[in-house]
Amino acid sequence: MEKTKKTIIVFSGDLDRVLAAFVIANGAAAMGDEVTMFFTFWGLNVLRKPEKVKTKKSFFEALFGWMMPRGAGKLGLSKMNFGGMGPVMMKYMMKQKNVASLPELIRTAREQGVKMIACTMSMDVMGIREEELVDGLEFAGVATYLGEADEANVNLFI
Amino acid sequence: MEKTKKTIIVFSGDLDRVLAAFVIANGAAAMGDEVTMFFTFWGLNVLRKPEKVKTKKSFFEALFGWMMPRGAGKLGLSKMNFGGMGPVMMKYMMKQKNVASLPELIRTAREQGVKMIACTMSMDVMGIREEELVDGLEFAGVATYLGEADEANVNLFI
Amino acid sequence: MEKTKKTIIVFSGDLDRVLAAFVIANGAAAMGDEVTMFFTFWGLNVLRKPEKVKTKKSFFEALFGWMMPRGAGKLGLSKMNFGGMGPVMMKYMMKQKNVASLPELIRTAREQGVKMIACTMSMDVMGIREEELVDGLEFAGVATYLGEADEANVNLFI
Repeated sequence: MEKTKKTIIVFSGDLDRVLAAFVIANGAAAMGDEVTMFFTFWGLNVLRKPEKVKTKKSFFEALFGWMMPRGAGKLGLSKMNFGGMGPVMMKYMMKQKNVASLPELIRTAREQGVKMIACTMSMDVMGIREEELVDGLEFAGVATYLGEADEANVNLFI
Repeated sequence: MEKTKKTIIVFSGDLDRVLAAFVIANGAAAMGDEVTMFFTFWGLNVLRKPEKVKTKKSFFEALFGWMMPRGAGKLGLSKMNFGGMGPVMMKYMMKQKNVASLPELIRTAREQGVKMIACTMSMDVMGIREEELVDGLEFAGVATYLGEADEANVNLFI
Repeated sequence: MEKTKKTIIVFSGDLDRVLAAFVIANGAAAMGDEVTMFFTFWGLNVLRKPEKVKTKKSFFEALFGWMMPRGAGKLGLSKMNFGGMGPVMMKYMMKQKNVASLPELIRTAREQGVKMIACTMSMDVMGIREEELVDGLEFAGVATYLGEADEANVNLFI
């Protein structure tokens, strides 16, 4: 049988790129495809809970955590960020055109059964703990990603 | 029969990345493959006409349009842009080595029948109108992209 | 027979993205897949020898060469680079967690027989000579890449 599964590595934590990832993921899921998103490096920021979670961290882990955006609502743009004005404008324009916001896209992805995997190696390096991330994730490494990609016919790195 | 179609999502509007996209697209087309390029977000800037086109726009649409590069001749580099000096140097060096410029690569892509699709959702959000883009494009959304990707054996996100 | 080969275009010269590329390449090789990495544009910097190699260059070639990082040890981060402090922190945190460094990942890739191809067109444009790059590479263009990608089931652009 023809493969129709899709995988997307979400490496970027930029609002524009993450939006693209979820639009593709939701589009594929709506067409009946299985979809796996693998969040790694800056992409993990998409999955952070918006509130601070108390955890034991080393100095550098805490510093990294403090410098990185906490959750889908805090992401910047890859271009024309203008210290945060760019994302505000982008979100306003999306709302004007009735385009779903990133939090809405993430909710739809969950409802459609898109599998979301957080990369454990990146979490380890960046000092991000499971309890700091939103619920409903799986935790795995590159071998799991490669297994999923082998079953898919479209594999993107975003 | 073995699939040989290629699809490329051109998300980036950086000269260096867009050059890579067209080199791959033209290479594949020259080898007889069908190629579809799907331009979205900053990638739409590649397709803008160099001259200003009169359209009715909201304040933010006009502002976005004014801030983004108008056409393939105006793109910056993702690295070492130096306020526009980087692209000038890059173009000079490409010319010295008789490497085709981006406008030439785009012309070749058209001549070879590479299908170019502008993402309607991004156009809507960014306030870009059909008449502001070069001729010979198709206009479609993520479902069309996914249909093309399902028929392809190589799918890249650039 | 099912294809299991993987290809990765390493376009980026950012430490974080290059790390991701090698983690995926080594993971796939460890699972018995053939892997081809195609280094182009900024990705070529990963392959530069750390020491200066005497070559005849034009003014702009020399300038480009001088401005770009020389080898895997000198790469910056795509985000939070902070003039070089970001990569130092990242490397420190990787070491703390016993995660392999980029030079170690590159060595493992070689030992596992990952094929590394340097893009000749990019080398030509950027004025990078074969003798400035590390040993054990192949030199080829987009047609070779496309031939490899046609034999693979996962093709990423990083």
